[in-house]
Amino acid sequence: MTGVELLLLTPDPDREDAGTAALARLLAARGLAVAVRRLVPEEAEVERALRQALEGRALVVVLEEAAGPLARRGLARLLGARLVLNARLLEALAAAFQARGQAMPREAEGLALVPQGATVLTTPGGPPGLLVEAPSALVALLPAAAPPGPILEQLWPLLEARARREGVTAQRTLKAIGLDLAEVEARLTSRLAGRPDLVVRCFPHHGEVWVRLVAHGATAAGAEATLARAEPVIAEVLGEAYYGRDEEPLEAVVGRLLRERRLTLAVAESCTGGLLGHRLTEVPGSSAYFERGLVVYSNEAKQALLGVPATLLAAHGAVSGPVAEAMARGVRERAGTDLGLAVTGIAGPEGGSPAKPVGTVFIAVASPDGVEARRFRFGGTRSEIKALSALWALELLRRRLLRRDPPGGVSA
Amino acid sequence: MTGVELLLLTPDPDREDAGTAALARLLAARGLAVAVRRLVPEEAEVERALRQALEGRALVVVLEEAAGPLARRGLARLLGARLVLNARLLEALAAAFQARGQAMPREAEGLALVPQGATVLTTPGGPPGLLVEAPSALVALLPAAAPPGPILEQLWPLLEARARREGVTAQRTLKAIGLDLAEVEARLTSRLAGRPDLVVRCFPHHGEVWVRLVAHGATAAGAEATLARAEPVIAEVLGEAYYGRDEEPLEAVVGRLLRERRLTLAVAESCTGGLLGHRLTEVPGSSAYFERGLVVYSNEAKQALLGVPATLLAAHGAVSGPVAEAMARGVRERAGTDLGLAVTGIAGPEGGSPAKPVGTVFIAVASPDGVEARRFRFGGTRSEIKALSALWALELLRRRLLRRDPPGGVSA
Repeated sequence: MTGVELLLLTPDPDREDAGTAALARLLAARGLAVAVRRLVPEEAEVERALRQALEGRALVVVLEEAAGPLARRGLARLLGARLVLNARLLEALAAAFQARGQAMPREAEGLALVPQGATVLTTPGGPPGLLVEAPSALVALLPAAAPPGPILEQLWPLLEARARREGVTAQRTLKAIGLDLAEVEARLTSRLAGRPDLVVRCFPHHGEVWVRLVAHGATAAGAEATLARAEPVIAEVLGEAYYGRDEEPLEAVVGRLLRERRLTLAVAESCTGGLLGHRLTEVPGSSAYFERGLVVYSNEAKQALLGVPATLLAAHGAVSGPVAEAMARGVRERAGTDLGLAVTGIAGPEGGSPAKPVGTVFIAVASPDGVEARRFRFGGTRSEIKALSALWALELLRRRLLRRDPPGGVSA
Repeated sequence: MTGVELLLLTPDPDREDAGTAALARLLAARGLAVAVRRLVPEEAEVERALRQALEGRALVVVLEEAAGPLARRGLARLLGARLVLNARLLEALAAAFQARGQAMPREAEGLALVPQGATVLTTPGGPPGLLVEAPSALVALLPAAAPPGPILEQLWPLLEARARREGVTAQRTLKAIGLDLAEVEARLTSRLAGRPDLVVRCFPHHGEVWVRLVAHGATAAGAEATLARAEPVIAEVLGEAYYGRDEEPLEAVVGRLLRERRLTLAVAESCTGGLLGHRLTEVPGSSAYFERGLVVYSNEAKQALLGVPATLLAAHGAVSGPVAEAMARGVRERAGTDLGLAVTGIAGPEGGSPAKPVGTVFIAVASPDGVEARRFRFGGTRSEIKALSALWALELLRRRLLRRDPPGGVSA
């Protein structure tokens, strides 16, 4: 059995684990598939977790959140190795204390102990890592406080030789919005059956549908070629809903389209409360196209900041198609942008009615060609309804930008 | 060895795992500490993972993301049990297909197979779960698509008897902002040493410092009493930085303070791009105090929407204390709220200078008593700088609200 296992030693038993998620992506980009990720909050469990992880794995990577010799001690015991004082580590520790103007306490010397035969991996300015060669596996201990990239960089040659004994893995994720998962699965199965070198899996991801392709081959080029053959088939099945690949989030795709078309954008949000602006501005350089956002939580704000007529609010209610359209038009005109995007809805848990239950959301896109609103009914908690509303606002904007008739041409 | 292990069977090897995090919190609230959480993306690994999880655990909970008999088949093999067709499950499956107007395909019958002796756990409207009693452990299989609460509710009596053979665990998390982790640790160690029934661990959590107390006792009351004795000691060490406990996030604490004082709020955001409004509106009922948010990404928007003078922008730059103050004053006056909160800064990666490097952020709070701005220098990625800016904006507002002189008295 080969494959990679990631362990996170953390005192936080209910965290959402971004550390090993990022590490899994780094390894996947190098063709190393992660078979298991394990989070170990209890110190008493560390040695058992290491032992289980070593069962037949080619590579075990341990992220340590707390400084301390916990993982090293457990590993030394498992391998029957002695713990020895490492002169380089001791020096680095003393220097760190000196830099803070403190004398190194006697107990801190424990941090310089390593299993005999281990290699110390240093990076400029960051805490060091360790590499230990077990009979069946390589074990890398990395401090969670530092980005793992620089330390992994030193390990690639060794890791690749060890972990790739049974071939290479390449993977790609194709992302889509607005499709039925079961339907995508059924259509892909019928199109891609009988390909033993390719695993295709569909799964939901925060309101999106993701399709992950994993190709196995004797070489990286072979695995990549398998992916390249499969990708157009999947893109065709996903159709208009297919928005991007791998790491690029929807807001970056939308940002790229706005840049290419030299268009500017302003947004008006009610139920999303700022989340739409937040997502748009997660993209570096978004100030080139994002001009302003207005979070108009009260009816007064909708009137004063967007010019939504009081009569419209009275006739249709704040959560309605006409008000969404007036918000999109209003923010576009007042900001002087090419496009206006507006969201109004009921995120709950209060505020629903039989005609407009919690989760009812209207999204409108305004361009020089006019304005269109669409009605949605989302399920879930307040937080999930907000997230789905922002997702679909970005998606409607993306689809508008992709239409053959560009919205309003090119701005100066 | 006792304790709980959580497994997530998912096709998504690099997800941030919110499912088992939520489950760990549910179990912790009932006194069951989670020793290990494991994410298993590869189907070929499921049986090994189940076997390892069963090694001496009292309780194993498996969340399954994909529908299918994968975990059941692995579990049956491990326990030497036969898979048998369950009439209740078969009926439920047929009904689900009928509701969609489809005939049940022959292959779907596999979903009605369960290890002999297993108990089917149903909830109204949701997909069913399974409970299997292994010699040493209880194994619960839950569908990830449904909230786990209703199914767990049926299991508590059984779980408690099994999992608590070696006593009860109670835990509490105290959360603070603006402290040095190492300092908190040193002070807590000297105050709480020599308490064998209490484990105290400090760790960083997205710019906050969290202190987790875990108490062990023969009874729930005993463990709770240990926590109650320790909590004031920790609160004293954390001081003004201590904002709340357990599940209540900072925005909910701030919301509670605003409600209690009957104060209203408007915000003006530059570098946070809407994140501050998003966090404030995550709280149900926030429309009672949150009036509006303005995301003023351009200088034009700062002038037009907040009345920030062009001369001020020219003299100090958009990222400056005077502009932050003018933004806070402007949004407060125009929205007619009791308080105004403003953030302006450089989230990067571009836009820094030697005098104002990336991560420089100014936050201002305006009240009827005047306005105060504070300068920060945050590290990290664009996304992290945005997150820390929003965090500290909420924290400065919280500290302002807690001062003896309430800001501007009570609004009508």
